[in-house]
Amino acid sequence: MASITKKVSWSSRSDEPGLGEGTPLLNGAGAPRYSRQLSGSGVFPIRRLSTVDLEEDPTAEEESATSHPKEIPHNEKLLSLKYESLDYDNSENQLFLEEERRMSYMGFKCLEISRWVVCALIGILTGLIACFIDIVVEKLAGLKYKVIKEYIEKFTEAGGLSISLVLWALLNATFVIVGSVIVAFFEPIAAGSGIPQIKCYLNGVKIPRVVRLKTLVVKVCGVICSVAGGLAVGKEGPMIHSGAVVAAGVSQGRSTSLKKDFKIFEYFRRDTEKRDFVSAGAAAGVSAAFGAPVGGVLFSLEEGASFWNQMLTWRIFFASMISTFTLNFFLSIYHKNPGDLSNPGLINFGRFESDSVEYNLYEIPVFIGMGALGGLLGALFNVLNYWLTIFRIRYIHRPCLQVMEAMLVAAVTATVSFAMIYFSNDCQPLGQDQAENYPLQLFCADGEYNSMATAFFNTPERSVRSLFHNPPGSYNPLTLGVFTLSYFFLACWTYGLTVSAGVFIPSLLIGAAWGRLFGIMLAYITPYGSIWADPGKYALIGAAAQLGGIVRMTLSLTVILVEATGNVTYGLPIMLVLMTAKIVGDYFVEGLYDIHIKLQSVPFLHWEAPATSHALTAREVMSSPVTCFNRIEKVGTIVDVLSNTSTNHNGFPVVTRVTDGDNDEPGKICGLILRSQLIVLLKHKVFVERTHSRLNQRKLQLKDFRDAYPRFPPIQSIHVSQDERECMMDLSEFMNPTPYTVTQETSLPRVFKLFRALGLRHLIVVDSENRVVGLVTRKDLARYHLGKHGLEELQLAQT
Amino acid sequence: MASITKKVSWSSRSDEPGLGEGTPLLNGAGAPRYSRQLSGSGVFPIRRLSTVDLEEDPTAEEESATSHPKEIPHNEKLLSLKYESLDYDNSENQLFLEEERRMSYMGFKCLEISRWVVCALIGILTGLIACFIDIVVEKLAGLKYKVIKEYIEKFTEAGGLSISLVLWALLNATFVIVGSVIVAFFEPIAAGSGIPQIKCYLNGVKIPRVVRLKTLVVKVCGVICSVAGGLAVGKEGPMIHSGAVVAAGVSQGRSTSLKKDFKIFEYFRRDTEKRDFVSAGAAAGVSAAFGAPVGGVLFSLEEGASFWNQMLTWRIFFASMISTFTLNFFLSIYHKNPGDLSNPGLINFGRFESDSVEYNLYEIPVFIGMGALGGLLGALFNVLNYWLTIFRIRYIHRPCLQVMEAMLVAAVTATVSFAMIYFSNDCQPLGQDQAENYPLQLFCADGEYNSMATAFFNTPERSVRSLFHNPPGSYNPLTLGVFTLSYFFLACWTYGLTVSAGVFIPSLLIGAAWGRLFGIMLAYITPYGSIWADPGKYALIGAAAQLGGIVRMTLSLTVILVEATGNVTYGLPIMLVLMTAKIVGDYFVEGLYDIHIKLQSVPFLHWEAPATSHALTAREVMSSPVTCFNRIEKVGTIVDVLSNTSTNHNGFPVVTRVTDGDNDEPGKICGLILRSQLIVLLKHKVFVERTHSRLNQRKLQLKDFRDAYPRFPPIQSIHVSQDERECMMDLSEFMNPTPYTVTQETSLPRVFKLFRALGLRHLIVVDSENRVVGLVTRKDLARYHLGKHGLEELQLAQT
Repeated sequence: MASITKKVSWSSRSDEPGLGEGTPLLNGAGAPRYSRQLSGSGVFPIRRLSTVDLEEDPTAEEESATSHPKEIPHNEKLLSLKYESLDYDNSENQLFLEEERRMSYMGFKCLEISRWVVCALIGILTGLIACFIDIVVEKLAGLKYKVIKEYIEKFTEAGGLSISLVLWALLNATFVIVGSVIVAFFEPIAAGSGIPQIKCYLNGVKIPRVVRLKTLVVKVCGVICSVAGGLAVGKEGPMIHSGAVVAAGVSQGRSTSLKKDFKIFEYFRRDTEKRDFVSAGAAAGVSAAFGAPVGGVLFSLEEGASFWNQMLTWRIFFASMISTFTLNFFLSIYHKNPGDLSNPGLINFGRFESDSVEYNLYEIPVFIGMGALGGLLGALFNVLNYWLTIFRIRYIHRPCLQVMEAMLVAAVTATVSFAMIYFSNDCQPLGQDQAENYPLQLFCADGEYNSMATAFFNTPERSVRSLFHNPPGSYNPLTLGVFTLSYFFLACWTYGLTVSAGVFIPSLLIGAAWGRLFGIMLAYITPYGSIWADPGKYALIGAAAQLGGIVRMTLSLTVILVEATGNVTYGLPIMLVLMTAKIVGDYFVEGLYDIHIKLQSVPFLHWEAPATSHALTAREVMSSPVTCFNRIEKVGTIVDVLSNTSTNHNGFPVVTRVTDGDNDEPGKICGLILRSQLIVLLKHKVFVERTHSRLNQRKLQLKDFRDAYPRFPPIQSIHVSQDERECMMDLSEFMNPTPYTVTQETSLPRVFKLFRALGLRHLIVVDSENRVVGLVTRKDLARYHLGKHGLEELQLAQT
Repeated sequence: MASITKKVSWSSRSDEPGLGEGTPLLNGAGAPRYSRQLSGSGVFPIRRLSTVDLEEDPTAEEESATSHPKEIPHNEKLLSLKYESLDYDNSENQLFLEEERRMSYMGFKCLEISRWVVCALIGILTGLIACFIDIVVEKLAGLKYKVIKEYIEKFTEAGGLSISLVLWALLNATFVIVGSVIVAFFEPIAAGSGIPQIKCYLNGVKIPRVVRLKTLVVKVCGVICSVAGGLAVGKEGPMIHSGAVVAAGVSQGRSTSLKKDFKIFEYFRRDTEKRDFVSAGAAAGVSAAFGAPVGGVLFSLEEGASFWNQMLTWRIFFASMISTFTLNFFLSIYHKNPGDLSNPGLINFGRFESDSVEYNLYEIPVFIGMGALGGLLGALFNVLNYWLTIFRIRYIHRPCLQVMEAMLVAAVTATVSFAMIYFSNDCQPLGQDQAENYPLQLFCADGEYNSMATAFFNTPERSVRSLFHNPPGSYNPLTLGVFTLSYFFLACWTYGLTVSAGVFIPSLLIGAAWGRLFGIMLAYITPYGSIWADPGKYALIGAAAQLGGIVRMTLSLTVILVEATGNVTYGLPIMLVLMTAKIVGDYFVEGLYDIHIKLQSVPFLHWEAPATSHALTAREVMSSPVTCFNRIEKVGTIVDVLSNTSTNHNGFPVVTRVTDGDNDEPGKICGLILRSQLIVLLKHKVFVERTHSRLNQRKLQLKDFRDAYPRFPPIQSIHVSQDERECMMDLSEFMNPTPYTVTQETSLPRVFKLFRALGLRHLIVVDSENRVVGLVTRKDLARYHLGKHGLEELQLAQT
């Protein structure tokens, strides 16, 4: 895990020094000053990782470039510069304020109503997508198992079982190849569960293409293929991503991909509003996946929100409610039982209702122990997956390799499953209730079925349910043990493959298996076997522990599990278990999603600044010097700055300079303008001549900015003639005249709090004269993190 | 509801003009400028309520003083100046930063652990208090009903029922008098449920004495008395207040009332940390009251939080969990069934488990209709209670009058109950299960009991449970109708009395009664009576609708009800019902708690600035001119400013003046210092002489500020000699050197967002030269609100 970077370019090399967002810092002036300050107050030595300044050692760059030609520089100690931020703080420029002031009270009421309408639409569409996935997966998987079962039954006595194996492996591999090809070649962002991506989006990081229609289509098809392909995956995680895409699409009232603009919801065409809807979409996704509307809201808040807003929470809640209801309603029709609302989610844990499953006080320590075990196993899972992901990033980054890996996993999964079923001779009598959909007789006597087959020869959702509810004695302890072990490694290998798939269900399944095993063991070793009678209860607790140990959510997961089991009796034990799992797991390694976010070098802002960062102030944190514009700026200058690919700034303070001739003196802040706004201005050629007569007669409106949102053209696509370069541009009307500012002495936690709470993208640092001296962006804050040895600083890299 | 103010003093009258927090505005300069601006952009006329400036019309003041001598100026269009704010933004002065920098990583870990310990203690103590209340109420009420039952049975045939009535009324009145006297004479803040007060506290308003030990003692005793006294009240609401007090006490590691300092948790002695614990305490209270730990967390967030912090949420969750567990554990011991954790909360709705109570799709419109009805009835309740409260504020503000009113209500409640029981001849056969604790035979045949008596002759909690679970046919529709009607008015009259009592249970009871009636009616009028068979289901929905219509919570209430019923099947209908109730109710009038907050003229900050307030900027909103101090200021000046009772400022910008001689020129901002900090400085006499030699050798530490927190002495108690007045005070070390600032052009929504998200108390408005031109405080923002006719401005009054 050496911190190797293939191509790192520091801003101080650029010709026009200055920093906006997307600019590395470590500027010559900042670092020494900062070190001095530290040695002055001198308690926290900050470990600078690989303090070699690449610029001063030009060989380093080449070396790394030659010695690891194929290696992509990924490392959890790096912060990528390729991610931009979203503008969760409104740019309150003159146009915006004028529009707001023109709007009547009724106008705001209508807006509010349309927000609710959008949330209803999000809920309905998310529910329908969930419904579609559920039905298609059920049909495909049913078909597949039926075919294989026929073959197995036909050939078991003939001894030609290998044919069945080949058939099974082939069928699985076919599904998985399809799923993997569309992901790898058409939309790589649709890989995995999508939860890390949505977390980043809600945090304020712009992940390219994450909420596009194409992503949704690939995601939905991909998840159907991977589940039908028998991989150790779930279809629940991807629902969250799907819901988010639906939300982002519906709320904009148009589809850029389909080139269709419905001319509605134009007011919502900015990042702030879109984010709110995406939260609702994610919640609707959880709600449809688990039938857990409250859990969905909490998930959205726990993973995404920064500012708690009551009205927003209610809308999110509304979307979740509609989503689970839609799914329930349509599934009830599909199951030819309209009106019977018993399918609130994709996964159905079945009811835990009988009195036998109540727990007792003396069981609580046992549950806590299981939580600790879950934490340990979860940490192991995460560490293994971490190594695997590092390996994948380094060596399996070509699409065709990725498809081959997915195919391999599919084949291995089928083989392992088959071997397990083949070598196990755990025969159980066929129950009267026919809970198993595809009971395999194999070498069992008539009237019996192979119990290992129920675990493997089924969709994971059904297996989980069987583990929860099958009566005591349905499973042989050895079967469960072997199953746990093999499924653990399969699931770990599978997560991170280039397929759309979630990790919730595999985690639950692993946990349910060892939990049930644990319950059976308890009944064996204790004298009063009867009181531990129900292993299903332990399966549930084990499932919670394992899932908690892997993803490390507590509050939202508790509610999701309670809602999915339909019983609040287990609320307390589930909470305890999840909390224990989190505490134990956090001791070793972070949660799975956070690991993946870190490995992508995403500048993710956590809840608070690192505890020991009070020694740092805005002066050390900020980037400087800053590229500023004058209130009335030459078009040529603007085009040149925007075209400078080495800096690629996104936000520019607008200043009024006191001494016009001497440009070295920083100017007084009077506003902030974004790259996207400048692009629109240039595109519409809103120039004034030196005589201040406006060239372009048409007044630019907010609508022009909204129409361009969110895919602003690159500067290269805008042609500016030599004459036009000599014109001036008056930015006053378009800049945000009241950006937030802090002074240089402000401590890092204070800067962080302001930045995080208000969802800022650029925070201007001024001196006592209100002159711009620096700019703080997301990357400047995200690079400080608390490592094992105190405060560490991540490197910025152009990965 | 005329807006009459007895004593209003505007700041512009004060000798030393200037504004800090707690200063009225409407300054001569601000208003006209603002009106001009409005007529310029001119879309939203802002209604200025009673624009008569009392100062220019001196007779107005006298008139109101003479014509309504006894009248206290309360009006929902006023904003009281008596409420101060809490400092939820840390004052990051040099002392604080030094301490933070000195602290090691382990130090922060220890702090984090002690936070968890405090939360555990909060949970345990809150659970124990709930346990105590529950047991004492049960004992007392049991004793009372037993005595009365004996009397009734003895005298029913002798015809001397009036003796029983008198006895009942007397017993009730005695309890209520005790409860009312301790509240009215010892701690008036303990009246009511305490939820509005805790809402205000979490919002950042300092309600005097709200989290003191004395308040807790009075609250607990008061609630026992009022429940035992048979009033139409619940003991659940007060648990929230109790939990909050426990939290505020435990987290400080000392009791000022008991003069005991444990020298622990000293780090938590500031408003920011205390607020976090109070949130946890409130959640623990809800959790103990309803056995709803998740609901508790959501309640805390919905009613209080502004910034969602994951770690904080988990701690809150932990406290809630411990609280319900403690209650459950000790109640199980009390009920001689240790280990049986079936009493998670004070109220137990009983289990809704049988399949017969499942709902069907076609019932959903019916539920929504019930939600609308609940919203209507809730609005009616609130409007009636609003008028009643206005009446009470005007005429019943002496403690003895308040006690008399409480006594009257107690007697009337007993009389009404008795009359109902007496005149109803709804006899039901005694069930085998003996669900009723005190079945009254009265004039019924042997083996039968009076059904009206089960509703009235019982604690409200038991009545609710009976309505939910008694088999169909237990209640006569007429009985239910009459009961609903009488209990509705009784509960409405009772809420707001000078007793400690909650409104949750009465609301649930009213709703359960009409809900059950509704269910019975449905079964009558529809052809397929059997499908509506279970009236208990409708009782539950009715209870939710009524409670939602009165308090207007949605998300948290859904979860609370789901957790209290122990069944998530009803999650969806309960949500729908609560949402409908809220929408319908909000159309007419606000929620009950908001009404009471408004009637107290509390400067409560809602979630967002009014929608149509973009036309306003910081310039119009701010108070100015501002009283500022120099970095090195004369002690005499400071003492004079602090002693000025007409302004009573709490925060002072510290400035450096460019031209020393001319004081009219506003100085450049360099910090912010609080009244409380200045008081501590004066008390410790940290003066420097003109020669800059420090007089007081002892260096002041953070500990000195913490020891004085939260009851800083008044300025009058600090003696400063004439010599000392001539000394200077160096504020640099103690002021917050990096206060948040905004420019004058910042729009109100932007100011509001900054203020609310960061929990500020003072926000400094500067011009382009960083000179202080104004100060925005809570009252400046809270006074804008959206009325029926657009943006309205509340008046500030020294009530």
